[in-house]
Amino acid sequence: MALTHYPVVNKNGDIITSAVTNLDLHDISRAARTYGVRSFYVVTPLEDQKALVKKIVSHWVEGTGSQYNPKRREALEMIILKNSLGEAIDHIRKNGGNFPKTVVTSARQSPDNISFRKFREMLQDSNLYLLIFGTAWGLSEKFITDADYILNPVIGNTDYNHLSVRSAAAVILDRLFGRDG
Amino acid sequence: MALTHYPVVNKNGDIITSAVTNLDLHDISRAARTYGVRSFYVVTPLEDQKALVKKIVSHWVEGTGSQYNPKRREALEMIILKNSLGEAIDHIRKNGGNFPKTVVTSARQSPDNISFRKFREMLQDSNLYLLIFGTAWGLSEKFITDADYILNPVIGNTDYNHLSVRSAAAVILDRLFGRDG
Repeated sequence: MALTHYPVVNKNGDIITSAVTNLDLHDISRAARTYGVRSFYVVTPLEDQKALVKKIVSHWVEGTGSQYNPKRREALEMIILKNSLGEAIDHIRKNGGNFPKTVVTSARQSPDNISFRKFREMLQDSNLYLLIFGTAWGLSEKFITDADYILNPVIGNTDYNHLSVRSAAAVILDRLFGRDG
Repeated sequence: MALTHYPVVNKNGDIITSAVTNLDLHDISRAARTYGVRSFYVVTPLEDQKALVKKIVSHWVEGTGSQYNPKRREALEMIILKNSLGEAIDHIRKNGGNFPKTVVTSARQSPDNISFRKFREMLQDSNLYLLIFGTAWGLSEKFITDADYILNPVIGNTDYNHLSVRSAAAVILDRLFGRDG
């Protein structure tokens, strides 16, 4: 899976590069580890943001954090930092031998979306899939339409549709891979 | 539901009062609003921590945050600050007419736990239920055994069992109330 900070939109729909949020790295890597995701790509083109990600990850993977809380290390060591989604896809291709199919998450309903049931079926086939989350107000429109698949939004049981990306990522992984015990 | 900062345990099993985490308030209130939870109690006995919660909530409910992002207001206005779980239960009793049954979340498997399926069935009856989450390394042992019910832990598809409380709350609400679209 990938968490991308560019190209995403702000409240007004402008394309921006968002800042990295520390707890996105922690929460989403812990969820990725819980649900057996292969790699967690964190995507940002900004040098200062890449330095921040490296600092956080090295604290927990190699630094004092790794002794203080080894379970956190097991999660954060899944993070692979890339400049762009294209670089993440290259990395998957070089390590897995195939281009992954891209699946984007979005808060919008559309008849062209795939359902969670459909995606669970697809995950049984031999393709590699890259599940992509946007930060800020979500992935850019062009980015969404260029993806191979758009996953249905997470709907609760109200008309409120504003989960954090941390919560949405955990819920989506649970729907795809969790056992309802 | 309730998020409690006392009595919880630290890494060594000592009973502590944990600090309030800003994003717990945001993420869990947004999830609570998404899944139709009635109220979100934030429980801490510490004056400085109560002041912090009030400051965060008032910024988003009454302050400039409420104009900047009204959707955030709809979530954070669900927060009711209490000194203890006992006070939260009193508040429910005074507003709902009955004592709620308490359901605690825990990362431990036990044959005495209730399953998600069982809890979904219970939610159809006429009782009120208070679903309780602990911060830090979880609720104290005595607190867990004193509750009416212990809910099964969230298991992914690995042996890694360390979701953040923000992620666990979202996943649990989705399993209880979400529609798998």
